[in-house]
Amino acid sequence: MSPAHREAAAELCKWMIAGGMAAHIDVVGNVVGRYASERADASTLIVGSHYDTVRNAGKYDGRLGILAGIVAVEELRRRNVALPFHLDVVGFSEEEGVRFAAPYLGSAALAGRFDPDMLKRRDATGQSIADVLRERGGTAKSITELAFRDKLAGYVEVHIEQGPVLLHENLPVGVVSAIAGFARRRVIVRGTAGHAGAVPMALRHDAAAAAAEMVGMVEQRSSRVPGLMGTVGQLQVPAGAINVIPGLCELSLDIRCDNAGELEKAIRDITTGIEAIAVRRGVSVEIEKVAELPPVLCTPRLRDALGQAVARQRFAVRSLVSGPGHDAVMFDGVTDVGMLFVRCGNGGISHSPLETITAADADTAVRVLLDFLINFEVRP
Amino acid sequence: MSPAHREAAAELCKWMIAGGMAAHIDVVGNVVGRYASERADASTLIVGSHYDTVRNAGKYDGRLGILAGIVAVEELRRRNVALPFHLDVVGFSEEEGVRFAAPYLGSAALAGRFDPDMLKRRDATGQSIADVLRERGGTAKSITELAFRDKLAGYVEVHIEQGPVLLHENLPVGVVSAIAGFARRRVIVRGTAGHAGAVPMALRHDAAAAAAEMVGMVEQRSSRVPGLMGTVGQLQVPAGAINVIPGLCELSLDIRCDNAGELEKAIRDITTGIEAIAVRRGVSVEIEKVAELPPVLCTPRLRDALGQAVARQRFAVRSLVSGPGHDAVMFDGVTDVGMLFVRCGNGGISHSPLETITAADADTAVRVLLDFLINFEVRP
Repeated sequence: MSPAHREAAAELCKWMIAGGMAAHIDVVGNVVGRYASERADASTLIVGSHYDTVRNAGKYDGRLGILAGIVAVEELRRRNVALPFHLDVVGFSEEEGVRFAAPYLGSAALAGRFDPDMLKRRDATGQSIADVLRERGGTAKSITELAFRDKLAGYVEVHIEQGPVLLHENLPVGVVSAIAGFARRRVIVRGTAGHAGAVPMALRHDAAAAAAEMVGMVEQRSSRVPGLMGTVGQLQVPAGAINVIPGLCELSLDIRCDNAGELEKAIRDITTGIEAIAVRRGVSVEIEKVAELPPVLCTPRLRDALGQAVARQRFAVRSLVSGPGHDAVMFDGVTDVGMLFVRCGNGGISHSPLETITAADADTAVRVLLDFLINFEVRP
Repeated sequence: MSPAHREAAAELCKWMIAGGMAAHIDVVGNVVGRYASERADASTLIVGSHYDTVRNAGKYDGRLGILAGIVAVEELRRRNVALPFHLDVVGFSEEEGVRFAAPYLGSAALAGRFDPDMLKRRDATGQSIADVLRERGGTAKSITELAFRDKLAGYVEVHIEQGPVLLHENLPVGVVSAIAGFARRRVIVRGTAGHAGAVPMALRHDAAAAAAEMVGMVEQRSSRVPGLMGTVGQLQVPAGAINVIPGLCELSLDIRCDNAGELEKAIRDITTGIEAIAVRRGVSVEIEKVAELPPVLCTPRLRDALGQAVARQRFAVRSLVSGPGHDAVMFDGVTDVGMLFVRCGNGGISHSPLETITAADADTAVRVLLDFLINFEVRP
């Protein structure tokens, strides 16, 4: 919701209109374009992804899925294809949750899963989502009202894989079978500050040393189970000085697994482990729940339809689990959900400027999406 | 050299002038006041400490020693005491090294130990010391020229202990026997960024996990030898996000010991340890030397003179090692060096707003200093 973010939304909206859609930007910054059906009773199929990014990120994470939708609509219009459903291409405003630690803000609103408590989340400057929305006249009610009221035909998302599987198997696209569940926590460790030269090692209650031990424990516990991943992506001693024993250290936790039971066990063990380290070191610890979502299984009907489109484009149909979460998660239980992954270069690196895909693979992804859209049958 | 820092200097200068000294602020921000001797061939005794602080610090670290000097001069003037030496009270501009990681900037300049390479050090915004000094017309030459050209009679510093020894022994002041040596390093760990949900644990090169292991190693190695201390005061993943595997992590190292041999061994082991962790984890590491100073022994002549002043004030003479470094270190080898420690409250905590002393102890410190000054005999 920064000026740059709003500029990006305005640009996307222009492209949708240029591509032949009626488009608008909603109060949380989602950009929604419609390629309307002529059928009176048409339901709506959503093709979407997000246009926000992490900091120092790549170009394709999120954006590829929006642009694939826009290009597919351009092609449908060029071919004068009339669809038996409204096709809504959506650029979701906030999936990563960088500024407010409020991931899926845009997709949650449209899926009717917006939690008004989220409005209280604050950015690093202390501004809350509510503060920022107020400037645009946004209220909890205006966000709740964004929920799709149309009959939904399904939700399909094209996204880069953000991993190395398709690259290793030499395939341009793959069909997602499930999206890993995850738990996110913010951990604040409070110890005792002191002069680095005046407090003997044995008498210290060093918040950073405690946090470092927690990082090691998260890594070890997460390495025990295949498919389980544990990441400390944020770690810092606020206003630390080279000659001061840290009295405060903050870290983030991201734990993921496609197996709900293993995910729960890992969350429990890691929480217990953090508390045990704190007690042993005489520091206090606060664990704040940021987000938690169980694993999502993609709808078999959409998996099959996407797989058939891949096969018709003469590629092997590879099914794979998504470690990262996606806006698709918000539509689980709301409508049928399907995802198409696109091969990444550079070893599958993502959330980095090294993130890359080829133009040929982007082209294949759009061809598969188009094929899927043309052949998609709305469930009666 | 921030506006607040300059304001503090101006205030100190006013107090010195009000206390009966000729005073000025030099190009690096040292505030120098003189209570001049009438003897033509008088040498100069320096009483000084620093007026900068770490962030979120206490009130007494540094400032107490400057104010003790100013109050002592006020009292000398009130009593019309003529000294056989010039007495220079100095507020050193930068001892902690917070902004530019350039500790002892002020005292190094006056002691004639300024290293022009220091001018290249940059603050968090990218400004170098040279940039900031240029605004005041400061150059490497103008700093080199700050070195005391007077014959020096000695250097004496009053400082809070920043530890619990005097508190436990129920003594208001103590005489410093030695100041621990230290080594400071900045460590930059570079791994591979990636999506927290897409890279299996076994394939990661997580810069923060590597840094965390280094923190643990520093703590363990430093705990093995009494008197040795190892601190990671700064630790951060720059621009980290909750769902991104850190590709970069920065940490600081501060290693201290009053035993030169043990200090050297610890530096060697910790450096080797950091490199071994990096190799094993497939991350790269850069270790930058920030500062390194061997332990300093206080001059027996000044230790004795300070001890006699303590005894004349009817307190037991307690001798103790200083873990923290002080501006006094810069005058080692330049002139005789002595230090008087003042008891801290709150368990000896320092570099924290909880840092405290009593007014009675401050009064005792000034009485001891005054007694020392009146009885001090310049070495022939």
